[in-house]
Amino acid sequence: MSESYRVAIVGATGAVGNTLMQILEERAFPISSLKLLASHRSAGDILDFKDEPIMVEELTHDSFDDVDLVFSSAGTAVSREFIPTAVEKKCLVIDNTNAFRMDADVPLVIPEVNIHAVLKHNGLIANPNCSTIQMLVALKPIYDAVGIKRIVVSTYQSVSGKSGSAVLELIDQTASALQGQPITLDEFAHQMAFNVTCDWPLLDSGDSEEEMKMVNETKKIFEDDSIGVSATTVRVPVFFAHSEAINVETKDKLTADEARRILSEAPGVVVIDDPKNWKYPLAVNVVGKDEVYVGRIRKDRSIENGLNLWVVADNLRKGAALNAIQIAEHLNQSRV
Amino acid sequence: MSESYRVAIVGATGAVGNTLMQILEERAFPISSLKLLASHRSAGDILDFKDEPIMVEELTHDSFDDVDLVFSSAGTAVSREFIPTAVEKKCLVIDNTNAFRMDADVPLVIPEVNIHAVLKHNGLIANPNCSTIQMLVALKPIYDAVGIKRIVVSTYQSVSGKSGSAVLELIDQTASALQGQPITLDEFAHQMAFNVTCDWPLLDSGDSEEEMKMVNETKKIFEDDSIGVSATTVRVPVFFAHSEAINVETKDKLTADEARRILSEAPGVVVIDDPKNWKYPLAVNVVGKDEVYVGRIRKDRSIENGLNLWVVADNLRKGAALNAIQIAEHLNQSRV
Repeated sequence: MSESYRVAIVGATGAVGNTLMQILEERAFPISSLKLLASHRSAGDILDFKDEPIMVEELTHDSFDDVDLVFSSAGTAVSREFIPTAVEKKCLVIDNTNAFRMDADVPLVIPEVNIHAVLKHNGLIANPNCSTIQMLVALKPIYDAVGIKRIVVSTYQSVSGKSGSAVLELIDQTASALQGQPITLDEFAHQMAFNVTCDWPLLDSGDSEEEMKMVNETKKIFEDDSIGVSATTVRVPVFFAHSEAINVETKDKLTADEARRILSEAPGVVVIDDPKNWKYPLAVNVVGKDEVYVGRIRKDRSIENGLNLWVVADNLRKGAALNAIQIAEHLNQSRV
Repeated sequence: MSESYRVAIVGATGAVGNTLMQILEERAFPISSLKLLASHRSAGDILDFKDEPIMVEELTHDSFDDVDLVFSSAGTAVSREFIPTAVEKKCLVIDNTNAFRMDADVPLVIPEVNIHAVLKHNGLIANPNCSTIQMLVALKPIYDAVGIKRIVVSTYQSVSGKSGSAVLELIDQTASALQGQPITLDEFAHQMAFNVTCDWPLLDSGDSEEEMKMVNETKKIFEDDSIGVSATTVRVPVFFAHSEAINVETKDKLTADEARRILSEAPGVVVIDDPKNWKYPLAVNVVGKDEVYVGRIRKDRSIENGLNLWVVADNLRKGAALNAIQIAEHLNQSRV
């Protein structure tokens, strides 16, 4: 029998916080108490968990006194400030922000890919970036079968990956655009309705922060610095689910048919690949789904060992909340 | 002094036909008469050219008797049926469809890239596919400077590249989605509002027809079968202008700074590349523009000679109508 945990969610009122609560309930994660933490602004809000109202509390350094397990997704700055306190107070923290992902002593874990890494934690485990998670769940079976030399990925990321209020802003912008009214920008730096943008801070190199996450996290999770990764991250006017066009150069040959077979048997992957009937994964169809959907598996004839894949997943579930909860479930089961 | 031409537009009532009329007027192309041709369904419609009404006529095999120059953009099947007649009747035809692009005796021309090819025509010149045109205008200066070994491109293509009615359908779908109403599909096989799709026929290989156009047309236009091209073509809920994430492996080294300088001086190219101020080309900003916009020029560290580019252009103008008219202008000037 497994234990029950005193759980806290940092950033409970955000899009990922909301999805965390949903999935904890769906999967009947063993919870003895649930503390919902957020900024001063949201303190006092009431959220329902298992049909019971819970009042949101303001996050402080004292929030973790009676907590075993913390899911943190209130942004990198909040995690940097408060998570060290939670770890000091002997909580196990699964952090969904960029704050500690590349720290050498912090495991960066996708259960289907590198669950072994979780054992080395010192109280803190990082959840990878949403766009990295779905890419690596799809690439891991290929990596194991034939090795991977290089990945060139272009993303089609939904606005819910930015925030819940970005979803509302896309609705507002779209309504304004359809009515020929001027568009008001709040969260977005550029028009998002009927447009595509690179919606992340750009570094001096010209790369976006999101692109460098995909590059660096891939190497860390595969424990393989030899993998070349080139990423172009793009925000599209889609509410939920990220899509990715992934070009992969494998070390040894793998045909499209073999890749399709391997992926069909892989954990956490669903293959939808039927060109004759124009079937492949679509963002609007994977919303609310737990798996990573892969299709358009085809040979890239421009190199000897090239493959193209189209990979779609719900960024709030597998890309964030679900992956974090799966990590907690693994730790819980390994304690049994 | 240049001549004046008796011009016919096949597919005058379509999105590209409309843009052809606009640009012929804007650029004061020397026209002595303009015949607007379309299907039986549109015959009798009245369109304005230079403030004069012109009645659309039904396209027949007799339509070309008193015509010197034909712009054809009514679809591949229509071109296959009627263009041979126009050529027989000694018209010069610039065809914007896929009907003859890969025919060995038909030049496939982008004026900034391979205008020399135009001279070998036998009455018929093909306009390349929209996604190919903007990619090669951006890559030609790099190809000339250091050679290109391989291209991996992912597209973000607007719905106007499908048809004028696809634009209206995206508006309808979007309004339905915002109101929580069911979405009706007409031109689109899959929901287009708030979704991304591969909106072209898929071949048995799994490649889309659009992807194979980019592969094959690139080799023909560069007259270089050694170039590797891997394309993933994606339709996004954007009305006008295509965006492309292009990864290029050059033969010799070219730094991002050198690429930026070469591209800044290239014909038909405008560079917008200022990561510090979050500036790069955006689809909504290039609508109605003639040039191909390039930004996010950055080193790809996953290979020795790698570069990434973000390339955006108005698919109805440079991607179709403008390119065709530029070809006609070159032929007109070379006759002077």
